[in-house]
Amino acid sequence: MGTPFVCETTFRVRYAETDAMGIVHHAQYLVYFEEGRSELSRQAGASYAKLEESGVALAVTEAELRYLAPARYDEKITVKTQVERVRSRSVTFAYQVVRTATGEQLVTGRTTLISINREGQITRLPEFWVKTMSKLAGQA
Amino acid sequence: MGTPFVCETTFRVRYAETDAMGIVHHAQYLVYFEEGRSELSRQAGASYAKLEESGVALAVTEAELRYLAPARYDEKITVKTQVERVRSRSVTFAYQVVRTATGEQLVTGRTTLISINREGQITRLPEFWVKTMSKLAGQA
Amino acid sequence: MGTPFVCETTFRVRYAETDAMGIVHHAQYLVYFEEGRSELSRQAGASYAKLEESGVALAVTEAELRYLAPARYDEKITVKTQVERVRSRSVTFAYQVVRTATGEQLVTGRTTLISINREGQITRLPEFWVKTMSKLAGQA
Amino acid sequence: MGTPFVCETTFRVRYAETDAMGIVHHAQYLVYFEEGRSELSRQAGASYAKLEESGVALAVTEAELRYLAPARYDEKITVKTQVERVRSRSVTFAYQVVRTATGEQLVTGRTTLISINREGQITRLPEFWVKTMSKLAGQA
Repeated sequence: MGTPFVCETTFRVRYAETDAMGIVHHAQYLVYFEEGRSELSRQAGASYAKLEESGVALAVTEAELRYLAPARYDEKITVKTQVERVRSRSVTFAYQVVRTATGEQLVTGRTTLISINREGQITRLPEFWVKTMSKLAGQA
Repeated sequence: MGTPFVCETTFRVRYAETDAMGIVHHAQYLVYFEEGRSELSRQAGASYAKLEESGVALAVTEAELRYLAPARYDEKITVKTQVERVRSRSVTFAYQVVRTATGEQLVTGRTTLISINREGQITRLPEFWVKTMSKLAGQA
Repeated sequence: MGTPFVCETTFRVRYAETDAMGIVHHAQYLVYFEEGRSELSRQAGASYAKLEESGVALAVTEAELRYLAPARYDEKITVKTQVERVRSRSVTFAYQVVRTATGEQLVTGRTTLISINREGQITRLPEFWVKTMSKLAGQA
Repeated sequence: MGTPFVCETTFRVRYAETDAMGIVHHAQYLVYFEEGRSELSRQAGASYAKLEESGVALAVTEAELRYLAPARYDEKITVKTQVERVRSRSVTFAYQVVRTATGEQLVTGRTTLISINREGQITRLPEFWVKTMSKLAGQA
């Protein structure tokens, strides 16, 4: 078992992502997580866009989030994403969202996605994808 | 030329729809407009969901909005939607969003949508749909 | 211990809430949950808007979601919300989102919120609010 | 009259920004516009975050958009933003969103924002801000 690869992607909080409390709305972090795993897949040459073209989509089946500190408009935040576990039909990602300037943890979480075909049925993940993700997870 | 039918749909502002100014984010009104024309189509028995099943989608080509007063979380707002003009390949809707309790105008606007087929090409609107919308517009 | 009160709120899926998979985007369910607890608080005469006016805000600290089946544009969905547990500084809500027509479960979940004051510090929930929520939870 | 400064900001379309038509939802472009003027303000050393700290907020009063071509998940898009006109109490921005790879125009638009104080009343824009924006507009 190797060390999992941690993908970092940094961007600024958009105004539309805040709410009347003056902070990023809690639902938005699932979008940040999604952007995190998109970037990880891209960097690994196994982009989600390509996966979809091969007729396989990934549907989120489970998500959990812990909110530790708020982020505000214009702040730079970094999403750190890693593959936690790959199986034949599902993959679990773990995330840390931190304030880029200080490294302070804002939100941590985990999502599990299953592989479904164009008919909406659970199906095996393509071989190349499992292989790539396993390497990233340090599983291989 | 008859009087256009005005469809009213009322709902509450959701917390996630507000931003750090404490008011509904301005982009959200395009979503409210969309909900307005969805409801109008539904009431007319020409639902957008059915239109999509027939292979025709409506893509927004133009939008304009004037913001007159803000709305806040939990407030009831009413979207008043009417068909302004129907052509063979496009339809224009006009909207008024008002504070339900007082009738105060919050936002007015207009969107034009064109009909496209599954290949993404501009196509004629189905006959039944043009007919229904023309009636609603008071054009028929 | 009594039976918890289950608040039901029903609405239609908006087009903007769907994604390129043709289904409601998974982040949207946190917004539906929020709407569920808003409605529950309103019905109990302890609206969140009033709570905020008293200087107390509720910040989500934990969320978990299980996705069982997808929802599509125009479908009616019902959010069933109940208070699972009330403490002096936090409250946990549990949710079921079902397809209104069939009762089929779409998503289940749970969120925990803590009470914070205008300075962003954790603070006790107002007495009247704890009382109301405890009753709803069947705790009282 | 000089040539207006054009600020370019590039990012990828997020999955959550698409809708069931498989393309970026039309309301999302107002968020992209907002990100465009945020970046322009930042680059000019007159960030919107700083403006807000000085007690002045900018509220959108008018928006117009023309949709020319769709964007899809994962595509890189570039928002080109310029100050079109500055007055004592309002500022108008113009936008072009293009496909980064080809330069193809996707959406063009314009928003006008007015300056409001903490009481929600229309107020003069701070001197330094008008000056900076006028320079960017090529008005100075």
